[in-house]
Order: sequence, then structure tokens, then C-alpha cells
Amino acid sequence: MISSKLPKIFYGGDYNPEQWDAETHREDLRMFKLAGIDIATVNVFAWALNQPDEATYNFEWLDELIDSLHANGTYVCLATSTAAHPAWMAKRYPDVLRTDADGRKRKFGGRHNSCPNSLTYRKYAVRIAEKLAQRYKDHPAVIVWHVSNEFGGDCYCDNCEKAFRVWLRERYGSLDKLNHAWNTNFWGHTFYDWDEIVLPNNLSEHWGENNSTFQGISLDYSRFNSDSMLECYKLEHAVIKKNIPDSVITTNLMGFFKQLDYFKWAKELDIVSWDNYPGLQTPVSYTAMAHDLMRGLKNGDPFMLMEQTPSQQNWQPYNSLKRPGVMRLWSYQAVAHGADTVMFFQLRRSVGACEKYHGAVIEHVGHEHTRVFREVSELGRELGELGDRLLDSRLPAKVGILFDWENWWAVEKSSGPTVALNYVDQIHKYYKAFYDRNIQVDIVSVESDFNAYDIVVAPVLYMVKPGVADKLTNFVSGGGTFLTTFFSGIVDESDRVKTGGYPGELRKLLGIWVEETDALFPDMRNRIVVNGEFGSLSGSYECGMLCDLLHTEGAETLAEYGDDFYKGMPVLTRNAVGEGQAYYVASDPEPAFIDGLLERLCADKGVLPLLNTPEGVEVTRRVKDGEEFLFVMNHNADPSTYELDGRYTNLLNGDALGGSAVIAGRDVQILSPAK
Amino acid sequence: MISSKLPKIFYGGDYNPEQWDAETHREDLRMFKLAGIDIATVNVFAWALNQPDEATYNFEWLDELIDSLHANGTYVCLATSTAAHPAWMAKRYPDVLRTDADGRKRKFGGRHNSCPNSLTYRKYAVRIAEKLAQRYKDHPAVIVWHVSNEFGGDCYCDNCEKAFRVWLRERYGSLDKLNHAWNTNFWGHTFYDWDEIVLPNNLSEHWGENNSTFQGISLDYSRFNSDSMLECYKLEHAVIKKNIPDSVITTNLMGFFKQLDYFKWAKELDIVSWDNYPGLQTPVSYTAMAHDLMRGLKNGDPFMLMEQTPSQQNWQPYNSLKRPGVMRLWSYQAVAHGADTVMFFQLRRSVGACEKYHGAVIEHVGHEHTRVFREVSELGRELGELGDRLLDSRLPAKVGILFDWENWWAVEKSSGPTVALNYVDQIHKYYKAFYDRNIQVDIVSVESDFNAYDIVVAPVLYMVKPGVADKLTNFVSGGGTFLTTFFSGIVDESDRVKTGGYPGELRKLLGIWVEETDALFPDMRNRIVVNGEFGSLSGSYECGMLCDLLHTEGAETLAEYGDDFYKGMPVLTRNAVGEGQAYYVASDPEPAFIDGLLERLCADKGVLPLLNTPEGVEVTRRVKDGEEFLFVMNHNADPSTYELDGRYTNLLNGDALGGSAVIAGRDVQILSPAK
Amino acid sequence: MISSKLPKIFYGGDYNPEQWDAETHREDLRMFKLAGIDIATVNVFAWALNQPDEATYNFEWLDELIDSLHANGTYVCLATSTAAHPAWMAKRYPDVLRTDADGRKRKFGGRHNSCPNSLTYRKYAVRIAEKLAQRYKDHPAVIVWHVSNEFGGDCYCDNCEKAFRVWLRERYGSLDKLNHAWNTNFWGHTFYDWDEIVLPNNLSEHWGENNSTFQGISLDYSRFNSDSMLECYKLEHAVIKKNIPDSVITTNLMGFFKQLDYFKWAKELDIVSWDNYPGLQTPVSYTAMAHDLMRGLKNGDPFMLMEQTPSQQNWQPYNSLKRPGVMRLWSYQAVAHGADTVMFFQLRRSVGACEKYHGAVIEHVGHEHTRVFREVSELGRELGELGDRLLDSRLPAKVGILFDWENWWAVEKSSGPTVALNYVDQIHKYYKAFYDRNIQVDIVSVESDFNAYDIVVAPVLYMVKPGVADKLTNFVSGGGTFLTTFFSGIVDESDRVKTGGYPGELRKLLGIWVEETDALFPDMRNRIVVNGEFGSLSGSYECGMLCDLLHTEGAETLAEYGDDFYKGMPVLTRNAVGEGQAYYVASDPEPAFIDGLLERLCADKGVLPLLNTPEGVEVTRRVKDGEEFLFVMNHNADPSTYELDGRYTNLLNGDALGGSAVIAGRDVQILSPAK
Repeated sequence: MISSKLPKIFYGGDYNPEQWDAETHREDLRMFKLAGIDIATVNVFAWALNQPDEATYNFEWLDELIDSLHANGTYVCLATSTAAHPAWMAKRYPDVLRTDADGRKRKFGGRHNSCPNSLTYRKYAVRIAEKLAQRYKDHPAVIVWHVSNEFGGDCYCDNCEKAFRVWLRERYGSLDKLNHAWNTNFWGHTFYDWDEIVLPNNLSEHWGENNSTFQGISLDYSRFNSDSMLECYKLEHAVIKKNIPDSVITTNLMGFFKQLDYFKWAKELDIVSWDNYPGLQTPVSYTAMAHDLMRGLKNGDPFMLMEQTPSQQNWQPYNSLKRPGVMRLWSYQAVAHGADTVMFFQLRRSVGACEKYHGAVIEHVGHEHTRVFREVSELGRELGELGDRLLDSRLPAKVGILFDWENWWAVEKSSGPTVALNYVDQIHKYYKAFYDRNIQVDIVSVESDFNAYDIVVAPVLYMVKPGVADKLTNFVSGGGTFLTTFFSGIVDESDRVKTGGYPGELRKLLGIWVEETDALFPDMRNRIVVNGEFGSLSGSYECGMLCDLLHTEGAETLAEYGDDFYKGMPVLTRNAVGEGQAYYVASDPEPAFIDGLLERLCADKGVLPLLNTPEGVEVTRRVKDGEEFLFVMNHNADPSTYELDGRYTNLLNGDALGGSAVIAGRDVQILSPAK
Repeated sequence: MISSKLPKIFYGGDYNPEQWDAETHREDLRMFKLAGIDIATVNVFAWALNQPDEATYNFEWLDELIDSLHANGTYVCLATSTAAHPAWMAKRYPDVLRTDADGRKRKFGGRHNSCPNSLTYRKYAVRIAEKLAQRYKDHPAVIVWHVSNEFGGDCYCDNCEKAFRVWLRERYGSLDKLNHAWNTNFWGHTFYDWDEIVLPNNLSEHWGENNSTFQGISLDYSRFNSDSMLECYKLEHAVIKKNIPDSVITTNLMGFFKQLDYFKWAKELDIVSWDNYPGLQTPVSYTAMAHDLMRGLKNGDPFMLMEQTPSQQNWQPYNSLKRPGVMRLWSYQAVAHGADTVMFFQLRRSVGACEKYHGAVIEHVGHEHTRVFREVSELGRELGELGDRLLDSRLPAKVGILFDWENWWAVEKSSGPTVALNYVDQIHKYYKAFYDRNIQVDIVSVESDFNAYDIVVAPVLYMVKPGVADKLTNFVSGGGTFLTTFFSGIVDESDRVKTGGYPGELRKLLGIWVEETDALFPDMRNRIVVNGEFGSLSGSYECGMLCDLLHTEGAETLAEYGDDFYKGMPVLTRNAVGEGQAYYVASDPEPAFIDGLLERLCADKGVLPLLNTPEGVEVTRRVKDGEEFLFVMNHNADPSTYELDGRYTNLLNGDALGGSAVIAGRDVQILSPAK
Repeated sequence: MISSKLPKIFYGGDYNPEQWDAETHREDLRMFKLAGIDIATVNVFAWALNQPDEATYNFEWLDELIDSLHANGTYVCLATSTAAHPAWMAKRYPDVLRTDADGRKRKFGGRHNSCPNSLTYRKYAVRIAEKLAQRYKDHPAVIVWHVSNEFGGDCYCDNCEKAFRVWLRERYGSLDKLNHAWNTNFWGHTFYDWDEIVLPNNLSEHWGENNSTFQGISLDYSRFNSDSMLECYKLEHAVIKKNIPDSVITTNLMGFFKQLDYFKWAKELDIVSWDNYPGLQTPVSYTAMAHDLMRGLKNGDPFMLMEQTPSQQNWQPYNSLKRPGVMRLWSYQAVAHGADTVMFFQLRRSVGACEKYHGAVIEHVGHEHTRVFREVSELGRELGELGDRLLDSRLPAKVGILFDWENWWAVEKSSGPTVALNYVDQIHKYYKAFYDRNIQVDIVSVESDFNAYDIVVAPVLYMVKPGVADKLTNFVSGGGTFLTTFFSGIVDESDRVKTGGYPGELRKLLGIWVEETDALFPDMRNRIVVNGEFGSLSGSYECGMLCDLLHTEGAETLAEYGDDFYKGMPVLTRNAVGEGQAYYVASDPEPAFIDGLLERLCADKGVLPLLNTPEGVEVTRRVKDGEEFLFVMNHNADPSTYELDGRYTNLLNGDALGGSAVIAGRDVQILSPAK
């Protein structure tokens, strides 16, 4: 959508010149030119500057800033500045301050500091968003609107408590339904009046990070909190749209960020944007998965890479430098997964407060003769040359991995059977097996059209929402391959167990009954013994954490447990339903087992790797108007060799490739089939 | 006492049908019959249901429930439902809510949530207990009354603070005595007015779990808190007794539960009952010790096993399944140590809130065709066949191990000499040495009659209360064998050090003077070098944690330290007093040393093992009217063999045994001497 | 200064007879005589006793105490008793209670419990200090005044918040300057009114121990808090001085105690005194460094060792006994580093509350026949014989190590680049290299005269205050050797980065530009590869944690990185400036590298070891009126041998030594050149 503004990948990032003088700003503009920077995100944290008191607004500095950027050929992503309220507001209207999970009223400080249900906050946030919209609606430099910044956190103040009760009334209609959903006859929690309900926090139902005595209440609070923040976003969004109907509005998301249900949020975003902060030890497959999640939020639409560091972070325990070439490599990884912008936090480093040791395009030294600036400029030049060829292209996938925020909340608040279960890790384990084989994956929601895929994988589908079991059954009946794993099909959307035998609504589809689930201590393992051979699988593999004890009810047993009193019980099953097949993995296997299993499932469906490459060489494919682009990325420090069928041109340097191709360490190739 | 109601071991558990519909309840009754279940604990958490507001009580559902159970042949253990107050009460009378150790007023939520000194809570708790007593006093199904549930927790609200001052006035009479007891001239804490005294918590004298700047204040708070909860129990107990003089009233205890002084509580219970929740890695000797503690609370009277899981817990980090046979094995272990009931939490699993992954007799699948239900039914059949033969039988012991809650509180609040000292672990180390030899032990209090025993062991008798030293001296003079260990005899009941040389009042009895105590770092060890041979002990053994540096004053040195600057000082001494002997172990030895030491002490007193069995095979002995029952329990997964003197019949299957006997893995035998 | 009172090293310690009866006190006096004790610190925690209510003061007990000590020949260090307020004061004037970093108002309890900005506290503290001064100003026994005790802690109450704003107005004059210093345009923190500023704590800018979103605010709070406590000290100091102009006033410091800027405090102390509590595993070099810091506070003036334990502490996790001889050894170590007193906490052990397991001269047993008392008496006799020979002697040093409290605060509050950086550990690493070679070191402040030294070492000089770079440049130009390390020269006194290239103001002096800083994970290492040989250094050494990537600008490269993408970049540089040289160590090396490096620097400047001794044998040198005293201390348990040039007499036993000298395990020799 923003591709109409400039026929190339936007390149730039966060820029806060209000922290410096005019001379520094002029120097910045010069260096933007040097680096090929054509977009700057401004006004992110300038609320206090824009509005020094209740009655006064002051945008002259911003006028000058935007004009000077425009004159320099730099477009503007204009933030609404509402991510941190001014100190005077906290002083005069304490209701804008949050109350934390321990019931402590906070004071002014930090950011993400506004109660999302504060009417004062909402009033002033909407007001300044409108003033900005009215002031800059016709400014040719402003091409994207950026509401607030990295929404997150939670609040437990009295206003939130009251709002929670209203939210519950809307959800349940009656206390009878609420009491049923929450099973309140347990521990005598029956509510007779809406006002008896209190927020679940460390003073009521919670303790520690993941412990609740009433998961149903906690789950609804998570929904409510996500909705409360979303409401803040929507209020600003609406007032900007009212003034600028064709505006492009976003807010920067954060990948696998637990607190906010981004599938719900994405519906309100004109374009998804996100901030990508992997560390030196983050698996590159994890970053790839996060990009795919962000792309999946709006069904495959390209997204903005809103922030990444050019070099170093400051908030990790150990903030390693990005090795030479890695900034470029990871920038292209974003593009390879659907990004149509490459943007940084930050264009110039601040000199005071907590982000002064976060990398920037322009470092504290202030000039262009740095490794970081050279790498940024080189990439700027390259992106300029790429032009618009990749813009708006999409990534076709035959595999969908199901991800669900509410499932995430529910499964990790569960009291029992194990504290070791981490939902995103389970998603990543299966994702990585596809990733390692260069098989493109979409991360999909329960609302997605499964029939667009050959294979749908749903690790730990603990919560089965209304209609999902039917959708999956239809998918399989129509020929699809479905795979799910242990501790699935347990609860409904209120975290109430579906009685009548696990995995509940999935029982028939999977053709199994799970009678019990054993939790293993961290040093305990069981074994998966394959019956004969299954694809490349044979012999035995380790498994652990949880072991479902199951009986087949129509499904075929492909592997059995090798140890303990449930030795011989099925651990991998396959059920034929209609034209398709439904698999169940009853424990948490070692990666080699998942690799072999998914290799076989893909082979059965004719889902083939984009390319066969050595370990560490990632491949994705974007397609636009029938033209395809193969991204080959070497995450190794050393060169690698792979085989190409046919002839290609590397768009980044014009080289012709074919047959045995070599890619340098940390290099990227964008291959277009030779005409 | 409850044995008069039914001539067999009661079998059943917690049952909360208020969470389901009538059809489910009918199905439950059918399955109770299948499983041989004849008792259900009901109404545990139904206060909000029974009393929807201040003025209204509603017991119709309970009438129907109890009637239907009665019609089904199921007896009722009737709870008073006061373990969690209703939400409306918290809303209307916030004084019922607790204030935590950080001074935070809690909101409605969880359970164990009522301030024990709230007059509102007490008023309504007594009122509902009385209404229940009046309503069901003549119901033939109701055979046990169950006050509240698992009393515990603490409160630091203003009402508790005021009550604490009153409690202190009663204890001390004058501020002079209190100032002396607490040694308040230390750090200028002198109190001139009762109202200057505040509760010791994280805002005043405490930090972390076990740290206090004034141990005397903390100790009194622990006493006060235990007494406050006990007062709640007693109020309910009194009002039930008033209405039903011959009622049997209990509350479910929790084994080694630190907060409540169960020896004091037990005096107010008509029968002791407790909840036994070992995990997969809990030593079976620890469970045995907990049973013996519960039996010891009322001087050996049989007790109720009120709760255990049929399969799995939910609140452990890793909730393993009980392996096949283990539920039966551990049920009989309870009986073997004095239980006259076998009861579960829970008869049917809830579908919502935090215990839905806790095992139950009737699982979420809802039918009887599960491993768990089969094992429960099989045990139910067996218990039915056993009839009343074991009921009211007792366990004769010649060894007493002294345990004292106030000592526990004091020793672990101590600032120095080491944080590594865990009182219950020390008790268990000595208990296990007897356990491993099948020598029956009573856990006794400082008020017990020591003369009933040949041997009394008191590990870490840090606090010596008034009269205890004399009682022990009389016991030894009369021929008894007494053993105590390092860091004993240090303080009086106010945690004031007894000056004049450690071990204070025990100095003369033990014939030693402890000059200093060295604390070892976790990786440091010393050695115990035995002088020649002592029983099977010879050579050297490791010791650590604390090392008393002592001088004998009449005692004989049996072993010396082997290392460090106190090499050659005594570490094991024996003092002859009258007809008996008093031993002192000056450090924390490795188990082999304790084994050899106690073997010798037993041999000297002619205290013999019930049977000699291989490791993992436990033996206890119950006796009734001259008839004896030997329980042989194989905790190993594989069969074991042991030798029998004489001929026996296994009551569980009628088999005759004698000479070399075999017991299957995880099997139990109840041996009666062949007539 | 106090040496005029008694021609010997004062020997004694804290004494609290208010916890016992008169008979015990008489017995204590007898034992003081036995032990050679001639000073007692009294009245430390007796405020509640002295002032039982607002209007009443009661000093009779103190009159009697001081008189009886005097009659016994025991001098008095008289404390003002204000380290813990009375319970009645907390009850009547809650403003004396502190509010903690979580915003929780504390209740009465513990010690260090008064808000330093409470006007009530200050009023009553000054009043009692004045009453004491007036009452005892002419008492011949009272020779030192001891204000409060171990000042420390912090407070976040409303009074402190208001006082902070006043403090800020005085520091900055205008909000513009404050906004600039704190860089408040970051995250929209601009302040428009002083009253908008709140204290930085866990409710505003902080979380955890070392995390802040605004380091500038946090830094100012640390200054303010140190100043607030200092103000309390000064108020008491002033009122005592007003009444007793020639009084000697101190308060006991605590070595490397982070919260208080002792360089600033020392200006207000007539003599420095401190409490030395090493544990069994504290490196002896660390204790030596702490003594040197305390001596450095007043430019080398001798100090008082106010507290040490004769045997054992109580507040460590594992409180080991001081091994035989260690109390004497560590007492002399204090003297060897500048102490002119040897004092203990405590003369008699309390029987109740949290210090009853802290060692004392008189133990709970109450008599003199203990190892501890024997060792104390032996040392008392020895100190008596030493007389005044050592008093007022000083320790000449040619090496200064720069230490700065504000740098400490700033560097550890830094967000990035690593959490592993511990300032004091870095100081200790370099200190230890000198210590191991018996090269005497002064710990100096940024205000010290660097020209008094041949070598100045300033590890991690992160914050460069105004004028310091010039002072260092002058020092080097004049021939001095300067060494600093990675992450230096980064910020100014407001924690604002000095732009234009690291290390900021030190860039020219060092002749380098640091372009980037890599943070290594704990398991990562790089290598320092020496170019050829440098002193005894050659080959390669490990380094880690942080690695500056630097370019020389005039400096010579002495060693390069051996690994990673910055292999070959300089890691050790030397810059010639005027007559001197400035070294930079760009990473955190293994100790062997630092040893070799400092050996070479010392050799170049002709700075020689006092003696060459085996590992574990420490040597220092005190000098008075041209007479020198060599302290030789053997920290090993076994005897050691070392070589002496010339003939000496051991003052402790009169032995003549020369040539090959032997020192027994844990022994001390004080060598005076034979005349």
C-alpha cells in the first residue's frame, strides 16, 4: 500500500532530533543522503514537547522538522507521540498512571505508562492524534501514520476493574453464564453481583508469572487487557481516518508478544509493521518464524520492518555487535519473508537515558567513517538499485502452522501437568523442521482458510474453539494432512475441559482416546519406537516432558513408547478421514524425529523444498505477477555451495548462476529465473 | 471412633457435585457402587452456594445430595464450607480479607483467604456451622464433621495486630516481662506501651522467608497465628458439639506443615485426619514418617487418611502419574502406619479452575473403563473383604523421636550459624535409619511420656522448654537411651540463649560442654573417626554443615573429628547417667554413620527389627486385642524375597507364608500369624 | 588524633551492658582487664532507654556505666544512639519511618530505620546528641564520639521527594539545565514544573537492583540520598562540636559500601573508622584493598578499626569460625594498612535477637576459659607491649588506584553493553596485581594530587568529571604513567555521553579512538596477542566480557585481538605524552596478563616490591619520623620463607632476622631495621 509513494523498499528508521540542536540535524540530513535513507519515523516520544500543558500545543518544531526532511527527500512515518504521557499529566490526573499486578499505583516514569482505560489518557491521546492529522493531512512527506509505540503492559487500577466488569457483561450477558464459564462453584467463587468480580492479579487469583487459581478469569483478563489497548489504538486510528480517509495507519508490533492478540489487532491495522530484535544466540529459524507470523497476521500481505538495530542492542544481558554482513543479511531475511521496508531503531543515538548504548546509523562519534555507517550505506545503495521489483510480491505456501494467542495464554496458565511446556517453543520445533528443508510455511490463525494448504500443523492445540474441529475435519476430509500433538483438544474457549475423553472435539478426527498424561521430570526420557519404517524414520527416538497414554479408535499406530509402564502404547498415530489423514504425536520428541516425520508428510503431499541447501543456508520465494524471486541466504560465516536447476540471475549483482552455485559467507542472493 | 459406624475401613473422598448436573450425579452414584466407595466428603467449598447473601441460606441442594448418597449406601463426611468466604462477603465486609506479609490488603480470590481474627468471618463461619449442625444432626448418613479445610496461611492486618497485642498481654502480663523475653534492649527496641508493638513482617522485622531481626517476636507471632486459626476451628467445633454432643469432628491436617502447631491442635480434634501428597521423588520413608507424626498427634490413636490422589497431582512442577499398583501400595502404607480410612481427593474431576488436572476416581472421560478406576475398584473390593479386622488396632513402638513445632520455627529463623540447617531433614535422617531396619517409631512431643520408650532421639533440640531437661534426665536415669545432636540446648522457649555454656540445660545430662560451633561451606567436609569399634562402626565417616567443638565433662568420647583445627576433639560422646545413657552427635554425619550408630543403640536395648527385609521392603506391625498384623510392603518395582520365622496367612489373598517368602513388585501383604 | 589519649593502639569494642544485670557488668570489667581491653564503644542502640518518651531523658544508667569503665581504666567511644529510633517515636510520628523502593511505608522494626529527611528524626537526633555532649563533655573517659551507626539504606517517602526537588533546584538552578542534564526529551520526560519530578524507584524509573530508564535521575538520587544521610551526620557532628570544640567525632563506615560517597563523607569526619567483616572465602587482597580505601579517604591518615568479629559472624549464609591465629593476623593486617585501633563487635554476646550468634570477646559461657578469649588476651598483651611505636605512622605509596563512587553508581546502572561488569571487581583485579608483588598502593579520588604518584591506574573510568582529563594529562606530561581500561571516558558527570568519539575527553591523552564495543556472552572469550615481548608478556592471553574495537591515533599497539572479526585490532596501546605514558587495556584480561603488564610498568618507573615473598605472604610498610616498620603477614596455614636484605628486629618478639627468614603459618612479623 505504501509502495505507491516510492517505487522502492523504504529505508530509514526512528529519528528523534528533538534531542539535539539544529546543526546536528543539518548534519543528519547530509548523512541520510549518503546512506540512501528515504524515510524517518518521527514524533514517537514528543508528547511532552508538543503539549507542555493542558491548554497549549506547540508543533512548530515538528513543522520545521517535517519540512526539512521533505526538502531532503526523506519521507515521514509520523507517530502520534502517545506512548508515554507527559509528566504534568501524571501530576494533574493520576488516573493516567497504571496500577501494577501487585496493586501498586505507579508514579510518573518509563514508557508504556498509561492506563488504557483512563478516560483522561484517551481524551488527550485522541485530541493530539486529531491535531496532528489535521495539521499534516496534506503534507506530501507524511506517508505512514504510526499510532503510539510498541503497545504492551497491563493495568489493575479501579478504572480497569470497572471496565472489566462492563466487558464481562458484554461477553456473557448474565452472571449465570459467567459462573458456568468460570466454573465458579469450584472453591465457592459463585458471583451474585457483577461488582463482586475483581481483577485477577497477585492480590486475588495470581501468584508468580504463570500461576492462577482461576484460569477462566485470567484468560478473560488477558482478552480484556488486549482489547483495552486495542481500543486505545482504534480511537486514534478512527480520528486520523476521519481526517485523512486514505491514510496508511499502523502501530509497531513485536513478533511473538504474548500480551496482545495480534490476529485481532491486525484487523484494525492498514499495514502490519514490527520491530525485530534477535540476539546473537537467537536461532535464525526463530526470526524467520516471527516474520512469517507477522506476514500471517494479514493473510500474507507484505509488512513493514519498522525497527531493527544496525549493530547492537542495549537491553539484553550481553549486547553483542552484529557481525559484519549480518545487518544486511537479516535485513534481506525480513524482505525474504515479506517485508517491504527496511527500517532501523535508530538513526542517531541519544546521549542520555536508557537507550544510549543501543546502536544507531549515526553513532556517538557523529561522522560517517564507521563500520556501521558503511554497511548501512552499502545496503542503502543496493536497495536503491533493486527498485520496486520485489514490492508487493507474496510468498506462496502449501504448509500452514496454526498459532493462537488465546491458546498460548491458556496453556501456560494451566496448573499441571507440567511447568516445562512452552507453547512458542513447541511451534518453533515444528516450524524449524520445515525451515531446515526450505519448505515455505504460513503461520495461520483458527480463522484462516485451511483449505488453502496441503498440510496444517497445530502443535499443542490445547484450546479448541467453536467450529475449529469441524473446519479441521473438513480440511482433512477434503484431502488435507493434519498433525497435532500431545495435550491437545482439552478445553473450550473458556478453559473448561471438554468431557467425554481427550482430545475432546478432535477425538473422532484423530481416531484416538487419550486416557492419561504422564509428566516427566526434566532428567527423565521415554522412547519412540517406530513400527518398521515410516519415511526415513526407523528404530527409536527420545521423547519427554509429557507422554499421553492413548488408545487408538480407528487410527493406525505408527510408533509406540519404548519404556515405562506404558511401553507398547501408541505414540504416533495416523487416522484416515475422507481423502486425508490426521496425525497425532503423543509426546515431545527429539528434533530428528520431527524432521523425519514432516519429511514424510511433505513427500506424501508432494510438497517439495524450494532448493536443497547445506545447513545454515535459508531459501524463500516471493512471487509477483508470475515473476518469482528466490532468496538464498547464507547464515554461515563461510561460503556454501548448492545446486540450482536451471539458470538464474542474482538481482543484487547481476551474476548469472546455474548448476553448482556458490554463496559467500553471510551473503544474500536474490535469484530471478533467467529469461 | 468412627469405626462404630461401619465395620470396615471407610473408602471414598472429596465430592463436589455442585459443579455438575443431576444426571452426572446419578452416574457418580452408580460408579461409587462399582468402586466400593462408602464415604463422600461434601460441602467443602459451597459457602457461596449455601449463603448467597447475608440473610439467605439455601441448603436444599445439600439435603438432596446427602439423601441421595444415603440411599446409595454412601456415608457423609460433612464439611462446614468455611475454607473460602463468598465473594459478596469480601465485597461488603473487607475485614474478612487477609493482609499479606508485605502489608498488601488482598482482594477476593483463591482460598484460605479469610483473616482468622476477622469478627465478621468468625460470626458467619460459626453461624453456618451451627445451621449445618442443626439441620443434619439426626441424619444417619453424616458420620464425621469436617471443619473448614487445610487451615493455613497468615495475616498481618490491623485486626490481627490488635489481637496480637491482646495475646501478648495474656502471655506476658507485663511489658517488663515481654521486654525481657524479647531482649528488646538490643537495637533499642524497648516497648513502653502495648500499642507500640507491631506485627513482624516484611515491613518491620522480617525479610525473605526465614529472616528476622527479632526471633523472639517472630516466634510469638508464629504461636499467635497458629492459635488464631485454632480459635476459628474451636469456635466451629464448639457450636457443632453443642448441637451434636456425640459428633466426631476433625479438620484435615497436612503432615509436616510448618505454620500450625499440630500437637496443640490435635487436642481439639476428635480424630486426626490428614492429606497425603507424596510425589514421584518423595522418599517412601518420608511418607512413613509423616504418617507416624499424624498418629503421634493423639498418642497413637488411628487416624483418617482424608485425601490422597488416585493418580496425579496438578500443583507440582512435574505431575507424574502414580505407577500401576502404587495407589494401592501407598493406601496400605497409610493403613500400615495407623490409618483407619482410605480417602481420595477427588471422586470426580472438576472441568474448570486450578484443580482440573488433579487426578480423580472418575476422570474427565466420565466412565469406569480407565486404569485409575480399575485400580480404585480393585482396592475397594479388597477393603470390603478385609472388613473390620484392622480397625482400631495400634502400633507399639519402643523408639520415640522427639519433634517440636516451636523448635522448628526457632531453629529456622535463627540468624546464624548456617542457612543449611533444615529441621525436618534432620528428623528424617534419624527416622530413616530406624525405618530402613523395620524398627517401629513413634513421633512424640515434649509433653509425651518418654518412659514408654527404650530409646528417645531428639535431633537438633535447639529449644529446651521448661521441664524438658528434667524429664529427659529422669528418662535416662531410669535406664533409657537418649540421643541428641549438634546445636541443641541453646535457647529457652523465648529463643533466649541459656548462658553458662552450651548445651545449656542438657549440659549435665550429656556430660559435655560445647565451646564453639563451626559452620562449613556446602563443599566442605570434616570426618568422624571412630575410636576403635562401636557396634558396626569403625574407621571414618564424612560429616559437615555444622561442627560443634566440644569438651567432655564426664562423657566418654566414642569418635573424634578427623580434620581441621579441631581434629581430635570429640564428635560422638556417651554419658552414663543412672541406669541409662545419653549420646551426643556433634555434627551432621553421612547416613552410614547414623545407621551404624542407631543399630548399636537398638542392639544395646534389645530393640529388634520386625523383620529383616531387602531394601525397599517396608514392614510395620499393628496390634489389636492381642492379635498382630504384619504389613509387608514392597516399594520396588520387582519381586523381593525375605525370611519369615513361623507361619503366617496373608489376609489379602489367604495365602499361607513361612520361611522364605516372596512379595511381588509394589505388592502388599498383611500377615496374620497362622493359628 | 586519639593517640594523644593513650600511648598505644586502642583495644576493645562495642559493649552493650544495658542488656544485662549489674553482676554481669562487674564480671565484664574484670575480664576486660584480663584481656588488655582499654576502650569500649557504648550507647550505640540505647535511644529508647535514654528517652522513654518525648519529654523524658534518662542517662543515669549511662553515667554509672561510663564511670565504672573509667574506674576500670577503660576509655569510652560514646555513640549518640540515633541509629534506631524508639518504638514510641514510630508510633507517634510516623514520618520517621522510611518508605522503601517499592513505595511501601515501613513500620517499626530493625535498625537503619529512620527517614533521613524526617524533621522529627532530625530534631530528636540532634537533641539527644546535644544532651550527651553537654553531659559528658568533661568526662575524662570519653575520647571518641560515634555518631549513629553504619549509616545506610534509602527512603522514598513524600518528604524525601520534596527534599529531592529542593536538592535539584540547588544543583541545577533551572529546569532547562535539569532537562538538558537528564536528556528528558528522550521518552517525552520533559519537566515543566519542579513538582512534576518524582523519586526514581520501582514505581517510576527503576526495576530490579541495577535497572533504570533514566540513569541521570538515578545518579542524582544516589547523590541526594548520600547527601541526606550525610546531613544527618553533620547535624549531630555540629552540635557535639559546638559543645566540645576539641572532640574527635566519627561514624563507622563499611569499606566498599555502595550507597554512600565516602570521599565526600570523610571530609566531615575527624577520623575515619570502619567495620571489617571478611568471610572465610574473602580474598585477603580484597580486605587489604578495603583498608587502603579507608586510609585513602583522608589522604593516608591512620584510621580506626571500629569493628571486627573475634571469631564468627552471624549474617553470612555460612558463618565459619576464624581459624586459630586468624583474628590476630587480620587485626595486624588492619594495622599494617593504617589502623591505629583494634576493636571488636562485640565485647559480650547478646542472648536474644538477631546477633546472638555473632562472636564476642566474652561468649555465652561467660568465662575466660575459651579459645577466643585466650586469643584476644594474647593479642591484648602484645598490643600493650607494642606501645605507641606505630601510632600515627603512614604508608608511603608510589602507585595510586583511582576509585570514584559516582562512577560506580553510573557504570552499574548502565543499560548495556553488559550486565557482567562489576566496578569493584575491576578495581580489585588491578589492585591484586600490585598486592601480589608487595607494591604499596593508595586508593585515591578524582580530587587527589596525582603528581604524588609514579603510576595512576583507573580501571573503567566510565565517567570523566570536569577537570579530571586535564589533571591526568598534566600528570602524564610530567612523567607519570597512567593506565585505564575499556568502557572509559564515555560520559560526563550527568551520565551524558561525550560525543565525538570514545573515550571522549581521554581520547587525546590515550591516542586512540574506540569505534565500537562488543559484549561477549559468559562462555565466550577472545585472545590478547602480544606483539613480540612486553616485559614478561609474550604469546597470547584470554580476555572477555567487553572488547573495545579501537583505532590508534598516535598510540603504539602493544597487543592485538587474536580472534573474531576484530582480530588484529589493538587491545593494548601506549601513548607517549610529554614525559610520560598513557596505557589502554581494551578488554577484560585474565590475571596473568595484568600481572605481567603491571610488572613492566612498575619496572619502567623503578617501583619495586617491598620484599619478594612467596604466595600468601603479604608485606606493607609504615613509616614515622624516618623510622620504618615492615609488616610481614603469612596468610598460609604453613610456614613460609623469604629473603631479607639487611638485618631487622621483629617488634613482636624481639627476634633478630636477616637473610633467609622464616615466618610461621598465620604469623605476623613487624620488622624494624636493626640499628
